[in-house]
Parts: sequence; C-alpha cells; structure tokens
Amino acid sequence: MAIDSWEARASRIERRLQELAVITDEPGMLTRTFLSAAMREANAQVREWMLEAGLQTHEDYAGNLVGRQGSKAGSTERQLTDNRLPILLVGSHLDTVRNAGRYDGPLGVVLGIEVADWARNAGRQFPFELAVVGFSDEEGVRFKTGFLGSSAFCGVLKSDDLKAIDANGVVLGSLLSDRMTEPLQIYRPTFSLERLIGYFEVHLEQGPVLEHRNRALGAVTAIAGQARLRCNWVGKAMHAGTTPVNLRKDALVGAAAFIQEVDRIARDWPGLMATVGELHVEPNVSNVVPASVTHSLDVRHQDDEIRVSAVNKLNESAAGIAAEHSLGLEWKSLQDTNSTACDRRLNIPLRVAIEKVTGELVDLPSGAGHDGVTLSRVCPVAMLFVRCRDGLSHHPDEFVALVDVTAALQATAEFLDELSTGLVRSK
Amino acid sequence: MAIDSWEARASRIERRLQELAVITDEPGMLTRTFLSAAMREANAQVREWMLEAGLQTHEDYAGNLVGRQGSKAGSTERQLTDNRLPILLVGSHLDTVRNAGRYDGPLGVVLGIEVADWARNAGRQFPFELAVVGFSDEEGVRFKTGFLGSSAFCGVLKSDDLKAIDANGVVLGSLLSDRMTEPLQIYRPTFSLERLIGYFEVHLEQGPVLEHRNRALGAVTAIAGQARLRCNWVGKAMHAGTTPVNLRKDALVGAAAFIQEVDRIARDWPGLMATVGELHVEPNVSNVVPASVTHSLDVRHQDDEIRVSAVNKLNESAAGIAAEHSLGLEWKSLQDTNSTACDRRLNIPLRVAIEKVTGELVDLPSGAGHDGVTLSRVCPVAMLFVRCRDGLSHHPDEFVALVDVTAALQATAEFLDELSTGLVRSK
Repeated sequence: MAIDSWEARASRIERRLQELAVITDEPGMLTRTFLSAAMREANAQVREWMLEAGLQTHEDYAGNLVGRQGSKAGSTERQLTDNRLPILLVGSHLDTVRNAGRYDGPLGVVLGIEVADWARNAGRQFPFELAVVGFSDEEGVRFKTGFLGSSAFCGVLKSDDLKAIDANGVVLGSLLSDRMTEPLQIYRPTFSLERLIGYFEVHLEQGPVLEHRNRALGAVTAIAGQARLRCNWVGKAMHAGTTPVNLRKDALVGAAAFIQEVDRIARDWPGLMATVGELHVEPNVSNVVPASVTHSLDVRHQDDEIRVSAVNKLNESAAGIAAEHSLGLEWKSLQDTNSTACDRRLNIPLRVAIEKVTGELVDLPSGAGHDGVTLSRVCPVAMLFVRCRDGLSHHPDEFVALVDVTAALQATAEFLDELSTGLVRSK
Repeated sequence: MAIDSWEARASRIERRLQELAVITDEPGMLTRTFLSAAMREANAQVREWMLEAGLQTHEDYAGNLVGRQGSKAGSTERQLTDNRLPILLVGSHLDTVRNAGRYDGPLGVVLGIEVADWARNAGRQFPFELAVVGFSDEEGVRFKTGFLGSSAFCGVLKSDDLKAIDANGVVLGSLLSDRMTEPLQIYRPTFSLERLIGYFEVHLEQGPVLEHRNRALGAVTAIAGQARLRCNWVGKAMHAGTTPVNLRKDALVGAAAFIQEVDRIARDWPGLMATVGELHVEPNVSNVVPASVTHSLDVRHQDDEIRVSAVNKLNESAAGIAAEHSLGLEWKSLQDTNSTACDRRLNIPLRVAIEKVTGELVDLPSGAGHDGVTLSRVCPVAMLFVRCRDGLSHHPDEFVALVDVTAALQATAEFLDELSTGLVRSK
C-alpha cells in the first residue's frame, strides 16, 4: 500500500526514529556505538526498511549499511559513456552519542529511505542511481575517534587508527579483521567511489540559528574548520588575605581578561565561533590567589583564513594580557582542521529546492563535524539542516517538529528533481 | 649561663624553632594539630624552655600552655588596689597547618619566652606581670574550626563547637571531657582574664608588604574583617560549534567579566583585598558553552564599612553583568566577620618601639585571622609583624631571616619598656 502524502511519509519517518531510539547498548538511555550489538540490531531493522523501499542492501566490513536502487532505475534513455548511472549517495549515520536524542544521524538515513520509496512510487527516473547509506561511526564514542564508518567506506582509514582500543580492551584492527574472510585492506574503498556524483546529508541543525530566524530549513555552506587549543596561565599562589592586589600574580584574573577578549572577538568577527568551555584552577582554594589556570579554546569558522587570523589575533591578545599581569603563558595547538565547503553543483539545486518548499532561504555553516568532511575527499557534498528545538542536540530531549521533517522530506525530493533537471540540461 | 646579646638570643629562637619543626604528627612534613601526640610533645618541650626562663607553667584542659613570671616580679613598690599586678600576655599558637613552615605560631611563643628570659636577666621590674602563652589551636586543622585554643582560654567556646568531629570520628566534646577530672565548663575562662591589660603577638607577616617595602617590622593596625561569599552564574549548555555568540548564555563569560571587576575594585579601593580563588565550571567540556560557573569571593578590609560597601558594590556589578549576559545569578554570603582593631594603648608604645629599633615605621593590617581576634573580646590586643621571604607562609619554605628575628625581639623588649613607662606615667 503506497503512501502518497508528505505528511504521512513524515509520520512514518518519526515512527521509525522512535523504533530505532529503543535499540540501545545501555538500557534506560539511547547509546549505540560502532559495531555494537545494538548497532547490529539497528542495521537489521534499517535493512528491512530499505528492502521495503525496493533497495538492494549491502553492509561493508565496517558496518556501513547501503541500500541501492540498482540499475533498474532505467539507464536506457540516458547517454552515459559506461552505460552505468552515476550514483547520488544520500544518508547519515546510525551510531549515536551516549544518552543521545533520536534525530542526530538516524533522521538522515530514515529520510533517505523515505525519499527512495517516494521516487519509486512516483516513478521518478533520475539521471543517477539513488543510494541510501547508514554510516556506522560518526560520533566516535567507542574508539574516541570519529568518522570510522565513512573513512572505511572511502578507503581513507589510517593504519594508526587500527591501534585504537575501546573501554573493554578490544583493538579496532582485530575487531575489523574478525569480520572479514579475506585480509583487511583499509585503503580499498567499500563502495564504487568513482561513480559518485555527490553525497547529500539531511541532519538536524544542532544549533539555534534556524529556530532564532524562524525557519524550518537551511542550506549548509560549509562544515566549519576547527582549531582546538590549550592555554595555561601561570601566576603565583599567594595568601588572599595578605597579598595586596598590586603584588599578586593572579592567573585567574589573566585568564578572565582573555575570556572577555575571546567573547569580544567572537562578537566582532561575523560567523566566528570562539569558546572557552573547560577551565581548571590551581590550587582552587577560596583563600589562595590562583597560581595556575588551564583552559580550552575552541575556534571555528567556515573560512579557513578567518579561523587562522582569529587564532593568531587571540594569541597576540593572550601574550599582551600575560605581560600586563606578569603571568607565564603556554599556548598549545591540539588540532587544526580546515573547513569543508559544500559543493556548488549540489548546493545550487538544494537552495532552489529549499526556497520552493519554505518560501525562504537560509544559508548557514555547520559548526559541528559530519561525515561529509570525509566524503568531500572523494565527491561533492551538500547538507540540508533541519530546525531543532532550543538548538538542543546530544541530549534525550533533542526534538524536530513533524512539520519540519515534512519540509525536509519535500525539499529533498525537490532537490533530486532540481538536480536531475540540471544534470540533463548540462548534457 | 646568661645570654647577653640580641643576636645570640635570636639564634636561640631559631634553634628552638628548628627543634619544634621536627615534632610532627606526619613524618616527612610538619603537621601539629589540636591535642595530638605531637602537640603534647611540643608542649612538653616548650614547658621546659619556660621553666628555664624562670616561668611557672600551667596547661589548661584545651592544651593551652601558659608560663608566668608569678608575683615575684615585685609588686611591693606599686600602688595596686588589690596588691596583685596586672598581666600582659605575650605569645602565639603552637599548632600548625598541614605541611607547615616553622615560624607560623611558634615564632611568637618562643620569642615570648626569650623576652621573659631577657627581662629576668636584665632585672626589669615591669608594672605588670609577664605571661607567655602557646595556644593549642589557631589553624583549626583537626576540627575544621579555628581558634579553639584561645576560645577555651577566654571561655567563649560555644556548645555547638563541641559537636565537631575529627577525621577519625573523635567528638571534640568527648575529647575535652576526657582530659578533665571535673565536669567540662566551657564558659569558664581558664585564665584570670580580669587581670589582663593586653595580649601581644609577634607573627610573621604571611604576606609580601614588608618585603616589598624593604622593612623588617610592621605594627598591625587591625585584623581585617572578612566576607566570604559563593557566587553562581547560570547560563545554558549549548554546542560550542553551532551556537553563535549572540545566542549564547555563557556562564563563564559572565563570571570572567565579574572577576575583572573584582580585580578592578581591589586596585581602586586602597587596602581592599578581593579574591576569586576557587572556581568550578559545568559541564566543563571544551566543545560545550559553560552552563554554570560557581566561584568563591573573599573580601577583606580593616575598615568594616569599606568591606561592606565593597561587597555591596560587587553585588551590584554582578547583577548588572548577569542582566547584560542574560544569566541567572545566585549570591550567597557564607561568612561576614568584622575587623578587630589593635588597641591604641598597646599600639602607641609598639610603634615607638618599632621606630626605635628599625628607624622606620610601617603600619599594616593583618589580612589573615589570629588569636588576637578572640582575645580582643576580653582585653586590648596588639601585633607585631615580621617580614617573611616572598610573602610565603603555610609552606615548608616559610622563612624569616635571623636579622629580622633579632629586630622583632629587640622591638618587643623596647615595647615592654615603653609600655611600662606609659603605665607608670599614667598612674
């Protein structure tokens, strides 16, 4: 029995997300980690839905589940060199953080299946084959390293990655080898990447921008680059009752001045995210002037040059503050990842689709990382963000309204149509 | 064999402090707590030195050790109503913090004994009897409540104090009762307070002011009043990568602005000590905007009105910062203790004595609490501060130079002479 309204399809997406939300490694909360029992069960469930949508399924050694339309979609009338259709990959990940909400990841996979079902029922003949993917590890909970699923999929795992050990002492390399009959070849992609014309992911925003602007959907411009640093301010422990302020070297006063500066720069530089989220004081006693403060610094921007400039500017400010307060300063970069731009070839039809469905267009960067970062190494990527309540994510109260799921589904269908038109026109 | 030079006496003080420094409850570091085995041993040693100096000793139920000149000092030529000399109490405490230095407390006791020995040898006939005290608990390490020794001495212990329990489950009330043959009467002083004309304490400064001003000695103007508060800033945990700064409620940014304000006020208001020494961030994760920050606030001044005004002003600033940053603010007073002024009747001769010995006069408040706070409830108090290296105290590296001990001893002797002259003149 075919479903024919977008609302009914969105309701089915919501029901399926609820079904997946109880498949967990930890009773009482939603936690699904890489290649766990719950992940196997979730993959089995999603596979059934893929089959119902007429997709042919395959799971690779890393637990990535792919459902493909196959060649039946009709290449006959298309003039393709190799007589095989290019492939558009749609999806997201099926693993979760610990004590997760039900949308982060599964929404993009279940919505991908729904749009494949719609395309079949509507008799759409795209100039590409549609493939839906559920990646097995985006969050990195089990092995503390994210994107294991998409990295295996793309053949970009590194041999060092295989040394990772989970909380039970399981080594990633052994875990993967045990799932194979032949030797593990991490540099061999598990998918025909050369046929990919793009990767498209629908994801909840995980931030408050769309809600604040009162919009259901947004086109992601880029997955922001990220610098992670550790700053250590070194002063001197002195008696809080006997040391006049002009004779102090108060590490916390220096750090506080810097935190103000971080906030100021983030307000002044459009699109810049800069955060001190973690901070430790030594000796952390109420009647002792702080001798040392160590804190994190997280800086993100979709433009790599701006991110690098901001970090340099903050380093300069920190050095000035340290000198002014007679404090020592250690400034250590822990990570510096460049931005991943969403591809115009996909983004232009996506923006048309969003405007058609919602009447408005919001462009916004993704501050969080996504599988698209990995996929961008092998094909164009694009992302559609869906409004979430209170910007909340990675929390059991994560919520996307049904009307917004409906809008996301419609926009994805429109996007496929737009992309098709564009591809046909450009031939 | 009598010692006749100040230098030789100061050397003996230093030797005795070294002897006391190895009498400890914790091998490898100096820790002596209320009524512990080490305290008993220290009292026994100090008692011997008191006897050598010609003092008659007595230890009360709370472990306070007193050595008195007795009536032999010669009241015959004085015209005293009751034919008994008034008493000047000189001393400090013999307990220590954990992993202490050797000066904090014992310096005042051992120096007191030395000055009593000098007075006897020099044949001084003061118009008062000299008594040297070693209080048994100033630091409050064992029962987490300070001044137990001087409180018992003055009969100002409270019945609630007796409920305190140490780390081994010993109840203070039982501990004290077990030391008595008759019922415990905490409201009865263990000393003839009505005869006290003053309490005088020599103590290392525990701060950097004298060192910074290149002076050996200072006259304490007052033991500063102290306000201890707990401030809690309540924002909202949000994703550090996806939440633009204008949509954040960052508790740490608010707290940092306030810490800057605390520093600014402490710089602008002469003599004000204001410190944020302890701070905790929730959830304290690098990629999450801080949802909550709780920190201490310690405000001290020798003038109670200024302390109260400063706390009010800081509360006002905090409220403004909270409103500006859309944060919740809890402001909780934990303690508010008034200042204890040093008494002019003792301080005037003390200042004359310091100026005679050092050629200069430094007046400074004590930011830390001392037994004088308790004694001020029953008699005039005065304190002489001695320069310490790097302002360091409560640390094994605590250090007072021998020349400064010499100066402190001379100034104390001069003070006794000055006080005598004044008392005789005023009769």
